[in-house]
Amino acid sequence: YAPTRCAAVQTSVEQSILPPCHHHEAVHDPQLVPCTCPLFSCPWEGHLEVVVSHLRQTHRINILQGAEIVFLATDMHLPAPTDWIIMHSCLGHQFLLVLRKQEKYEGHPQFFATMMLIGTPTQADNFTYRLELNRNQRRLKWEATPRSVLECVDSVISDGDCLVLNTSLAQLFSDNGSLAIGIAITTSKVHNAEDKM
Amino acid sequence: YAPTRCAAVQTSVEQSILPPCHHHEAVHDPQLVPCTCPLFSCPWEGHLEVVVSHLRQTHRINILQGAEIVFLATDMHLPAPTDWIIMHSCLGHQFLLVLRKQEKYEGHPQFFATMMLIGTPTQADNFTYRLELNRNQRRLKWEATPRSVLECVDSVISDGDCLVLNTSLAQLFSDNGSLAIGIAITTSKVHNAEDKM
Repeated sequence: YAPTRCAAVQTSVEQSILPPCHHHEAVHDPQLVPCTCPLFSCPWEGHLEVVVSHLRQTHRINILQGAEIVFLATDMHLPAPTDWIIMHSCLGHQFLLVLRKQEKYEGHPQFFATMMLIGTPTQADNFTYRLELNRNQRRLKWEATPRSVLECVDSVISDGDCLVLNTSLAQLFSDNGSLAIGIAITTSKVHNAEDKM
Repeated sequence: YAPTRCAAVQTSVEQSILPPCHHHEAVHDPQLVPCTCPLFSCPWEGHLEVVVSHLRQTHRINILQGAEIVFLATDMHLPAPTDWIIMHSCLGHQFLLVLRKQEKYEGHPQFFATMMLIGTPTQADNFTYRLELNRNQRRLKWEATPRSVLECVDSVISDGDCLVLNTSLAQLFSDNGSLAIGIAITTSKVHNAEDKM
């Protein structure tokens, strides 16, 4: 599998002061999204239908096909903030995996991974995504409902409502500086019964 | 299931300066362990065979039976450092679940959960433990080989080689201030094939 990574963009913009998501609150069309490649300062805006071609053509984001794929994020040692991004085509939709290395606490970079549907929040509710790390006799699985790219990936990550890895754990799951993330998408089942453990 | 919690002990001892584990390096008998109830300043030492009765009698730690159990950790809002501890009797052995709230980064408490076998490291290698959180349409699973209580729970936690939860994620998985942790122990299978994803 060919790893794809958004180039490491050193940003000095304090995200909590100037959230890049706010600027689409002002537009008329609620389906008009800014560029979803988070750490790029990309001025692009467009409708949902053309997000995929923008990401492919402008940012060279790869698409992987299949219900279960493995995304290999290389060069995990790159300094924060860095994003690794891949598109995942599955069940008739395109999903965006964002793996971000970020220093939420100064001097302590962490990794945050989440999936966004390139579609509406209502469509996103129909799916469940699973991220799985498996190495060195350790296994970590995160399952959740994807967010829509109409929402804000930065807030998902700053809320920590995603797979979160400390550097030490990321190293345990890495092989030669690369992290293999197993990704699976399924249509949602009713979670209510399971919630009542 | 009755929740059991080691009372919240406010400790001002800097663990990296004075690790409580060091003092068993000096003893003659390598199977002599200090009290494994981590945040208590308990002077007790004894052989593996009597650790369980010490924990039950002195620290009132409960034992839950069964291959799969649910441990309900209550009062997750208590200030760090706090430990929640339960013993799990399963497959002819006793395991110790330690859930710790700790401020690795000042002002940002995190939760760390791991299982230790009340037995030797060689015995521990025969098992796999799984911790699972499941709520609000999110699921997080951590699987690993338990450590032996002859090793040091503090180093497992400071290395982050365990289930790690940010406060925000702990809240998403909590119900009314309580965190239900599904625990399962199995005998180890060979992970090598799975490691080569």
